[in-house]
Amino acid sequence: MDIKQVAKDTAKVLTSYFTYQALRTVLAQLSENDPPQALWLHSFSSRHSIQDGEAFLLSLLQEKQELAFRLMTVRQHLAEEVADFLPEMVRASIQQSNMEHRRQHLERMTQLTISDPPARSEQTDSES
Amino acid sequence: MDIKQVAKDTAKVLTSYFTYQALRTVLAQLSENDPPQALWLHSFSSRHSIQDGEAFLLSLLQEKQELAFRLMTVRQHLAEEVADFLPEMVRASIQQSNMEHRRQHLERMTQLTISDPPARSEQTDSES
Repeated sequence: MDIKQVAKDTAKVLTSYFTYQALRTVLAQLSENDPPQALWLHSFSSRHSIQDGEAFLLSLLQEKQELAFRLMTVRQHLAEEVADFLPEMVRASIQQSNMEHRRQHLERMTQLTISDPPARSEQTDSES
Repeated sequence: MDIKQVAKDTAKVLTSYFTYQALRTVLAQLSENDPPQALWLHSFSSRHSIQDGEAFLLSLLQEKQELAFRLMTVRQHLAEEVADFLPEMVRASIQQSNMEHRRQHLERMTQLTISDPPARSEQTDSES
Protein backbone atom coordinates (compact mmCIF):
# COMPACT_ATOMS: atom_id res chain seq x y z
CA MET A 1 0.00 0.00 0.00
CA ASP A 2 1.72 3.16 -1.20
CA ILE A 3 0.32 5.64 1.34
CA LYS A 4 2.31 8.55 -0.08
CA GLN A 5 0.93 8.00 -3.57
CA VAL A 6 -2.62 7.61 -2.22
CA ALA A 7 -2.24 10.92 -0.37
CA LYS A 8 -0.99 12.65 -3.52
CA ASP A 9 -3.78 11.23 -5.66
CA THR A 10 -6.38 12.18 -3.05
CA ALA A 11 -5.12 15.78 -2.91
CA LYS A 12 -5.40 15.93 -6.69
CA VAL A 13 -8.96 14.59 -6.63
CA LEU A 14 -9.84 17.13 -3.93
CA THR A 15 -8.35 19.97 -5.96
CA SER A 16 -10.53 19.00 -8.88
CA TYR A 17 -13.55 18.62 -6.61
CA PHE A 18 -13.08 22.12 -5.18
CA THR A 19 -12.95 23.43 -8.74
CA TYR A 20 -16.34 21.83 -9.34
CA GLN A 21 -17.71 23.35 -6.13
CA ALA A 22 -16.27 26.73 -7.14
CA LEU A 23 -18.06 26.44 -10.47
CA ARG A 24 -21.34 25.75 -8.67
CA THR A 25 -20.77 28.70 -6.36
CA VAL A 26 -19.90 31.14 -9.15
CA LEU A 27 -22.88 29.93 -11.20
CA ALA A 28 -25.19 30.62 -8.25
CA GLN A 29 -23.66 34.08 -7.70
CA LEU A 30 -23.94 35.01 -11.38
CA SER A 31 -27.54 33.80 -11.56
CA GLU A 32 -28.36 36.52 -9.06
CA ASN A 33 -26.10 39.32 -10.27
CA ASP A 34 -25.43 38.71 -13.94
CA PRO A 35 -27.85 36.24 -15.58
CA PRO A 36 -26.40 36.51 -19.13
CA GLN A 37 -22.93 35.65 -17.78
CA ALA A 38 -24.47 32.77 -15.77
CA LEU A 39 -26.07 31.48 -18.96
CA TRP A 40 -22.76 31.72 -20.79
CA LEU A 41 -20.87 29.85 -18.03
CA HIS A 42 -23.59 27.22 -17.88
CA SER A 43 -23.32 26.63 -21.59
CA PHE A 44 -19.51 26.57 -21.38
CA SER A 45 -19.61 23.96 -18.61
CA SER A 46 -21.92 21.76 -20.67
CA ARG A 47 -19.35 21.82 -23.49
CA HIS A 48 -16.29 21.25 -21.25
CA SER A 49 -16.12 18.48 -18.67
CA ILE A 50 -15.36 19.62 -15.12
CA GLN A 51 -14.13 16.09 -14.35
CA ASP A 52 -10.58 17.37 -14.90
CA GLY A 53 -10.60 20.71 -13.11
CA GLU A 54 -7.27 21.90 -14.52
CA ALA A 55 -8.23 21.23 -18.13
CA PHE A 56 -11.52 23.03 -17.49
CA LEU A 57 -9.74 26.11 -16.14
CA LEU A 58 -7.28 26.08 -19.03
CA SER A 59 -10.12 26.20 -21.56
CA LEU A 60 -11.97 28.84 -19.56
CA LEU A 61 -8.84 31.02 -19.39
CA GLN A 62 -8.78 31.04 -23.17
CA GLU A 63 -12.43 32.06 -23.52
CA LYS A 64 -13.19 34.28 -20.51
CA GLN A 65 -10.15 34.85 -18.34
CA GLU A 66 -11.98 36.90 -15.71
CA LEU A 67 -14.31 33.97 -14.96
CA ALA A 68 -11.38 31.56 -14.78
CA PHE A 69 -9.60 33.84 -12.33
CA ARG A 70 -12.77 34.07 -10.29
CA LEU A 71 -13.13 30.28 -10.15
CA MET A 72 -9.50 29.99 -9.07
CA THR A 73 -10.04 32.49 -6.26
CA VAL A 74 -13.23 30.78 -5.10
CA ARG A 75 -11.73 27.29 -5.05
CA GLN A 76 -8.80 28.55 -3.01
CA HIS A 77 -11.22 30.21 -0.59
CA LEU A 78 -13.32 27.03 -0.32
CA ALA A 79 -10.22 24.96 0.39
CA GLU A 80 -9.10 27.41 3.09
CA GLU A 81 -12.51 27.26 4.76
CA VAL A 82 -13.15 23.54 4.53
CA ALA A 83 -9.79 21.73 4.51
CA ASP A 84 -9.15 21.71 8.26
CA PHE A 85 -12.47 19.98 8.99
CA LEU A 86 -11.96 17.21 6.44
CA PRO A 87 -9.74 14.78 8.38
CA GLU A 88 -12.22 14.48 11.24
CA MET A 89 -15.24 14.45 8.91
CA VAL A 90 -13.94 11.80 6.54
CA ARG A 91 -12.84 9.53 9.39
CA ALA A 92 -16.25 9.87 11.03
CA SER A 93 -18.01 9.35 7.71
CA ILE A 94 -16.12 6.11 6.99
CA GLN A 95 -16.51 4.78 10.52
CA GLN A 96 -20.21 5.45 10.56
CA SER A 97 -20.76 4.12 7.09
CA ASN A 98 -18.78 0.92 7.87
CA MET A 99 -20.77 0.41 11.07
CA GLU A 100 -24.04 0.92 9.21
CA HIS A 101 -23.06 -1.64 6.54
CA ARG A 102 -22.11 -4.18 9.23
CA ARG A 103 -25.34 -3.59 11.15
CA GLN A 104 -27.55 -3.88 8.09
CA HIS A 105 -25.69 -6.95 6.90
CA LEU A 106 -26.14 -8.60 10.29
CA GLU A 107 -29.83 -7.75 10.19
CA ARG A 108 -30.21 -9.30 6.74
CA MET A 109 -28.40 -12.44 7.88
CA THR A 110 -30.62 -12.67 10.98
CA GLN A 111 -33.80 -12.21 8.96
CA LEU A 112 -32.68 -14.92 6.56
CA THR A 113 -32.18 -17.24 9.51
CA ILE A 114 -35.54 -16.39 11.06
CA SER A 115 -37.53 -16.72 7.83
CA ASP A 116 -35.73 -19.93 6.92
CA PRO A 117 -35.21 -21.75 10.23
CA PRO A 118 -33.81 -25.26 10.47
CA ALA A 119 -36.52 -27.97 10.35
CA ARG A 120 -38.29 -28.17 13.73
CA SER A 121 -38.83 -31.38 15.57
CA GLU A 122 -41.96 -31.80 17.74
CA GLN A 123 -39.65 -32.88 20.56
CA THR A 124 -40.42 -29.91 22.88
CA ASP A 125 -44.18 -30.66 22.62
CA SER A 126 -43.76 -34.32 23.42
CA GLU A 127 -41.53 -33.44 26.38
CA SER A 128 -44.11 -31.17 28.03
CA MET B 1 -21.69 30.03 -0.25
CA ASP B 2 -22.84 27.21 2.04
CA ILE B 3 -19.49 26.19 3.52
CA LYS B 4 -21.03 23.58 5.82
CA GLN B 5 -22.76 21.82 2.92
CA VAL B 6 -19.59 21.95 0.83
CA ALA B 7 -17.67 20.34 3.71
CA LYS B 8 -20.27 17.58 4.05
CA ASP B 9 -20.33 16.89 0.31
CA THR B 10 -16.54 16.85 0.20
CA ALA B 11 -16.34 14.33 3.04
CA LYS B 12 -18.79 12.11 1.17
CA VAL B 13 -16.76 12.33 -2.03
CA LEU B 14 -13.61 11.50 -0.07
CA THR B 15 -15.29 8.49 1.55
CA SER B 16 -16.18 7.19 -1.87
CA TYR B 17 -12.69 7.91 -3.17
CA PHE B 18 -11.10 5.96 -0.30
CA THR B 19 -13.39 3.04 -1.17
CA TYR B 20 -12.00 3.16 -4.71
CA GLN B 21 -8.43 3.28 -3.39
CA ALA B 22 -9.23 0.38 -1.04
CA LEU B 23 -10.49 -1.62 -4.02
CA ARG B 24 -7.25 -0.95 -5.88
CA THR B 25 -5.22 -1.94 -2.83
CA VAL B 26 -7.15 -5.18 -2.21
CA LEU B 27 -6.96 -6.07 -5.92
CA ALA B 28 -3.18 -5.64 -5.81
CA GLN B 29 -2.91 -7.74 -2.63
CA LEU B 30 -5.10 -10.52 -4.04
CA SER B 31 -3.18 -10.56 -7.33
CA GLU B 32 -0.15 -11.65 -5.30
CA ASN B 33 -1.79 -13.97 -2.77
CA ASP B 34 -4.99 -15.27 -4.31
CA PRO B 35 -5.19 -14.77 -8.10
CA PRO B 36 -8.60 -16.49 -8.56
CA GLN B 37 -10.13 -14.19 -5.93
CA ALA B 38 -8.45 -11.19 -7.63
CA LEU B 39 -9.98 -12.27 -10.92
CA TRP B 40 -13.39 -12.57 -9.30
CA LEU B 41 -13.17 -9.12 -7.69
CA HIS B 42 -11.94 -7.62 -10.93
CA SER B 43 -14.92 -9.04 -12.78
CA PHE B 44 -17.28 -7.89 -10.00
CA SER B 45 -15.92 -4.34 -10.19
CA SER B 46 -16.41 -4.27 -13.95
CA ARG B 47 -20.08 -5.13 -13.39
CA HIS B 48 -20.65 -2.67 -10.50
CA SER B 49 -19.64 0.98 -10.66
CA ILE B 50 -17.32 2.12 -7.86
CA GLN B 51 -18.48 5.71 -8.50
CA ASP B 52 -20.87 5.30 -5.56
CA GLY B 53 -18.72 3.52 -2.97
CA GLU B 54 -21.60 2.69 -0.61
CA ALA B 55 -23.72 1.08 -3.33
CA PHE B 56 -20.65 -0.89 -4.42
CA LEU B 57 -20.07 -2.21 -0.90
CA LEU B 58 -23.74 -3.08 -0.51
CA SER B 59 -23.66 -5.25 -3.64
CA LEU B 60 -20.35 -6.79 -2.62
CA LEU B 61 -21.72 -7.66 0.84
CA GLN B 62 -24.44 -9.65 -0.87
CA GLU B 63 -22.05 -11.61 -3.07
CA LYS B 64 -18.85 -12.00 -1.03
CA GLN B 65 -19.13 -10.52 2.42
CA GLU B 66 -15.53 -11.27 3.43
CA LEU B 67 -14.22 -9.12 0.58
CA ALA B 68 -16.64 -6.31 1.45
CA PHE B 69 -15.47 -6.38 5.07
CA ARG B 70 -11.88 -6.31 3.88
CA LEU B 71 -12.52 -3.26 1.68
CA MET B 72 -14.21 -1.52 4.59
CA THR B 73 -11.21 -2.19 6.85
CA VAL B 74 -8.73 -1.04 4.23
CA ARG B 75 -10.56 2.21 3.44
CA GLN B 76 -10.70 3.02 7.16
CA HIS B 77 -6.98 2.35 7.43
CA LEU B 78 -6.23 4.51 4.37
CA ALA B 79 -8.29 7.36 5.79
CA GLU B 80 -6.48 7.10 9.14
CA GLU B 81 -3.09 7.22 7.44
CA VAL B 82 -3.79 9.93 4.89
CA ALA B 83 -6.47 12.26 6.31
CA ASP B 84 -4.23 14.42 8.49
CA PHE B 85 -1.97 15.34 5.56
CA LEU B 86 -4.83 16.37 3.28
CA PRO B 87 -5.54 19.94 4.46
CA GLU B 88 -1.96 21.05 3.87
CA MET B 89 -1.63 19.08 0.63
CA VAL B 90 -4.85 20.30 -0.95
CA ARG B 91 -4.13 23.92 -0.05
CA ALA B 92 -0.65 23.65 -1.52
CA SER B 93 -1.99 21.87 -4.59
CA ILE B 94 -4.58 24.58 -5.29
CA GLN B 95 -2.15 27.43 -4.63
CA GLN B 96 0.49 25.97 -6.89
CA SER B 97 -1.99 25.09 -9.58
CA ASN B 98 -3.56 28.57 -9.52
CA MET B 99 -0.12 30.17 -9.72
CA GLU B 100 0.84 27.94 -12.62
CA HIS B 101 -2.36 28.84 -14.53
CA ARG B 102 -1.74 32.55 -13.95
CA ARG B 103 1.90 32.29 -15.04
CA GLN B 104 1.09 30.34 -18.19
CA HIS B 105 -1.77 32.67 -19.04
CA LEU B 106 0.49 35.69 -18.66
CA GLU B 107 3.06 33.99 -20.87
CA ARG B 108 0.46 33.31 -23.56
CA MET B 109 -0.73 36.93 -23.42
CA THR B 110 2.85 38.17 -23.70
CA GLN B 111 3.60 35.90 -26.62
CA LEU B 112 0.45 37.07 -28.38
CA THR B 113 1.61 40.65 -27.92
CA ILE B 114 5.10 39.89 -29.19
CA SER B 115 3.99 37.88 -32.22
CA ASP B 116 1.27 40.41 -33.07
CA PRO B 117 2.72 43.80 -32.17
CA PRO B 118 0.97 47.04 -32.94
CA ALA B 119 1.74 48.32 -36.49
CA ARG B 120 5.26 49.77 -36.54
CA SER B 121 6.02 53.07 -38.03
CA GLU B 122 9.41 53.58 -39.65
CA GLN B 123 9.85 56.56 -37.37
CA THR B 124 12.80 55.14 -35.43
CA ASP B 125 14.69 54.45 -38.66
CA SER B 126 14.04 57.89 -40.05
CA GLU B 127 15.12 59.40 -36.75
CA SER B 128 18.55 57.79 -36.82
